Amino acid sequence: MSGYKASLLARECGGQLQGPDVELTGLAGLKEAQPGQLSFLANPSYAEHLGSTKASCIIVPKNVAAEGRTLIVTDNPYLSFAKAVTFFYNAFKTKPRPGIHPAAIIDPSAQIDKSATIGAYVVIEAGARIGANTVILPLCYIGLGTTVGDDCLIYPQVSIREGCRIGNRIIIHGGAVVGADGFGYAKDGDKYFKIPQVGNVILEDDVEVGANSAIDRGALGPTIVKQGTKIDNLVQIAHNVHIGRDGVVAGQSGVAGSTFIGDRVVMGGQVGIIGHLKIGDDVTLGAQSGVVKSIPSNTVASGYPAKKHSEARRREASVALLPNYIKKINALERRIVELEEKLKG
Amino acid sequence: MSGYKASLLARECGGQLQGPDVELTGLAGLKEAQPGQLSFLANPSYAEHLGSTKASCIIVPKNVAAEGRTLIVTDNPYLSFAKAVTFFYNAFKTKPRPGIHPAAIIDPSAQIDKSATIGAYVVIEAGARIGANTVILPLCYIGLGTTVGDDCLIYPQVSIREGCRIGNRIIIHGGAVVGADGFGYAKDGDKYFKIPQVGNVILEDDVEVGANSAIDRGALGPTIVKQGTKIDNLVQIAHNVHIGRDGVVAGQSGVAGSTFIGDRVVMGGQVGIIGHLKIGDDVTLGAQSGVVKSIPSNTVASGYPAKKHSEARRREASVALLPNYIKKINALERRIVELEEKLKG
Amino acid sequence: MSGYKASLLARECGGQLQGPDVELTGLAGLKEAQPGQLSFLANPSYAEHLGSTKASCIIVPKNVAAEGRTLIVTDNPYLSFAKAVTFFYNAFKTKPRPGIHPAAIIDPSAQIDKSATIGAYVVIEAGARIGANTVILPLCYIGLGTTVGDDCLIYPQVSIREGCRIGNRIIIHGGAVVGADGFGYAKDGDKYFKIPQVGNVILEDDVEVGANSAIDRGALGPTIVKQGTKIDNLVQIAHNVHIGRDGVVAGQSGVAGSTFIGDRVVMGGQVGIIGHLKIGDDVTLGAQSGVVKSIPSNTVASGYPAKKHSEARRREASVALLPNYIKKINALERRIVELEEKLKG
Repeated sequence: MSGYKASLLARECGGQLQGPDVELTGLAGLKEAQPGQLSFLANPSYAEHLGSTKASCIIVPKNVAAEGRTLIVTDNPYLSFAKAVTFFYNAFKTKPRPGIHPAAIIDPSAQIDKSATIGAYVVIEAGARIGANTVILPLCYIGLGTTVGDDCLIYPQVSIREGCRIGNRIIIHGGAVVGADGFGYAKDGDKYFKIPQVGNVILEDDVEVGANSAIDRGALGPTIVKQGTKIDNLVQIAHNVHIGRDGVVAGQSGVAGSTFIGDRVVMGGQVGIIGHLKIGDDVTLGAQSGVVKSIPSNTVASGYPAKKHSEARRREASVALLPNYIKKINALERRIVELEEKLKG
Repeated sequence: MSGYKASLLARECGGQLQGPDVELTGLAGLKEAQPGQLSFLANPSYAEHLGSTKASCIIVPKNVAAEGRTLIVTDNPYLSFAKAVTFFYNAFKTKPRPGIHPAAIIDPSAQIDKSATIGAYVVIEAGARIGANTVILPLCYIGLGTTVGDDCLIYPQVSIREGCRIGNRIIIHGGAVVGADGFGYAKDGDKYFKIPQVGNVILEDDVEVGANSAIDRGALGPTIVKQGTKIDNLVQIAHNVHIGRDGVVAGQSGVAGSTFIGDRVVMGGQVGIIGHLKIGDDVTLGAQSGVVKSIPSNTVASGYPAKKHSEARRREASVALLPNYIKKINALERRIVELEEKLKG
Repeated sequence: MSGYKASLLARECGGQLQGPDVELTGLAGLKEAQPGQLSFLANPSYAEHLGSTKASCIIVPKNVAAEGRTLIVTDNPYLSFAKAVTFFYNAFKTKPRPGIHPAAIIDPSAQIDKSATIGAYVVIEAGARIGANTVILPLCYIGLGTTVGDDCLIYPQVSIREGCRIGNRIIIHGGAVVGADGFGYAKDGDKYFKIPQVGNVILEDDVEVGANSAIDRGALGPTIVKQGTKIDNLVQIAHNVHIGRDGVVAGQSGVAGSTFIGDRVVMGGQVGIIGHLKIGDDVTLGAQSGVVKSIPSNTVASGYPAKKHSEARRREASVALLPNYIKKINALERRIVELEEKLKG
């Protein structure tokens, strides 16, 4: 396999070449890399590994040097490495051919851009629109009147129900369900009367949705995920939730109905947020947090019930000490009894 | 778009019209409503918003008045609004035409009612039966000998495996898997020997199952969800679980094997219940509860390990005070030392 | 229905017949069993039920006797019962006929063993290979160059993306997604730059994956699940995770990226493990544990943050006592004040 010059990759990933130019045929971690491969050092404290890696070229931060090696020096080695991976990936991947697979069922009123790719056993209902260069892989379902923008990638077995708005450059992974009914009922004596969920889901540009995640349609208005937010696998987003821009929702997290989440919020795995709360901008929630109250902007919170991370850690440390303090309390009580007896005597 | 008279909607949703009759063309929340729309006020403490809403008609509880406005007065405004939504929804939705899509594969021995709708790329195995007016949307799988009752709605990409019994008026959302093998093994030295799961799943009438949820078949007998229980998205119901009538299981909750849950049990989101427990009737479990012991009827429980909610809150409050009490204990100890020294001296 | 002699079943399940040989037509639990059925007693403390069961034959451990009954005596009654269930199950189940359903789309370059069964609406991409006796049920997707070994059973609506390696005797339940992109981004200012995930997933022989679970492909190298490990429903395995041999991952658990889990690790339901940890061999994690630090081999851990189970229980017990100890501290303080006043006086 012929490769690419390190000088070319340096340009592609926004860095500067140091040392001899070399031919690179692939990428790997510092430890796993073989001759001919490009690797990266994001954390200067691992600089010692620079001596032992077999990589032919390493992306490094500005303050790192390595005698006689080929380096690509950059402000953000992790980002530069991501760009290098993307360069190799795009060079080798086979772009699906545009067109509609003969075994796909497209309603005559649906509009499919000529540059889009529609896979086998895809069903696209009436009035749906699929944008330019979008790829819909096999076995997907696109509901009545739903629009999918340009340059999207929809993996197999995704279902997007009626009336949803999917922006541009969106990736939805296998098995995700967008636009299922919100979980809304009115109590009627002991029984639950279903409230038809007549809203929809809006995913803005550059959103990514993980495998087997579920984003419910709003009861009346929309459920919204704003531009650039990334959602991991098995996440539950309930009806009428709003998630701001450039957020991260890690695996198995859930957000209950009508909660409003600001911009740049980062949620660890298995976080739960109850309904009707307001989470500010730039909030970070530790993995497994259980959020039962609104959280102001610029807060790091964790634990159950979630509180400021510093407070959560202080409580956690106190609980760790508790068994010893209980012994101490009992000992203090004995000493007080002694004192009381002495004073009585 | 022509609409419906407020007087007609009042009858449909079990309320009484007050004020001038008006034409209504849609529904929205109090804040979002536009002229021509119907809205509702469920909580009297929001009555102040009645002045500012643009809604042309508002469903209100009995003790609320609003000079000069068109109101529908009812005992249960939320239920009445749900009925109004249903009325509009039914008026505008397009009922799928009965019949079997040519791109569906139905075993000749399966019995499909003439009024049922079977979508594209649906597979129905031998001996299955599909009832009257039931709609099975594209890309679903119905296993050997499984029966689906009347008036059901099965969304795309649902799989119901062999031998299950699905009642009437059941809704199953996209990606749900009903009847997968329970997670049962016998230990054989270090290895796990799979126990074939030869039971099934029984969903009684009016059950709803959320997107990407999983309800496993019993090991020998059935896994049962009784009449009227509503299950949200990404819920896991293990083998041989029994869930009683008119319950609610919110998103991402899980119930482990053979646990018996009574009637009218409400589970918040991300609740976990371990196996072989007995949860009584009318139990409410707070979000993220971890239930490790059986719970008697009429209990509100929360936390991990779940305990009576009042006790859980008392403990939580105590833990919040703990860092201060630890300081206090240390201060008390110093005072005791002083007292001891004084008495010695 | 004609059945099988108890003497035959005793041989099949590795036990010894005691009492008269009888004809057995099915299996059930001790309480539910009817005449003609085989049942089992795994726990000697339930031996009292031997008197009342209607079962015609019972598998029992070595130290149990029951006058006049037909018993199968064995070292491991649960395992023997599992083998008996398997015997009946195999006798009655209909093996799918080998061959490719006409409504399946197989790339001409894919290699499908002649003894394999490929169901309706399955899509198999270029270069994929499917082994002997493997059954792929309807509506599955097998990606580019992915290999599936011999004797596998892939339930409907499973997606296995490109380049994955699925071993022999593997079972994957409905809706599972194997090989979706790991959740990897490089921060680029406020935005997230997607890192192409160019690794794959390797499932070794005898692995089982539950319904709607997700196992992500590695970023560069593989995500690995070693031989014999059983994964339940709705489980999330992130990129570059390694799970050792003969482990158990119960429902709704999640393992974050690059965490290494040793052999014979048992995870209860809804466990979460953060990324980049090392969990040793023979570790057991209680349900809902939140693991934030590496754990050495041979540890039983639970709680959040997870610690040794004995310590977690001690803390839990201390917290239960805390409200009373807070009262006690306040009472002690009052007594100290009294003592201080007496000494001043």
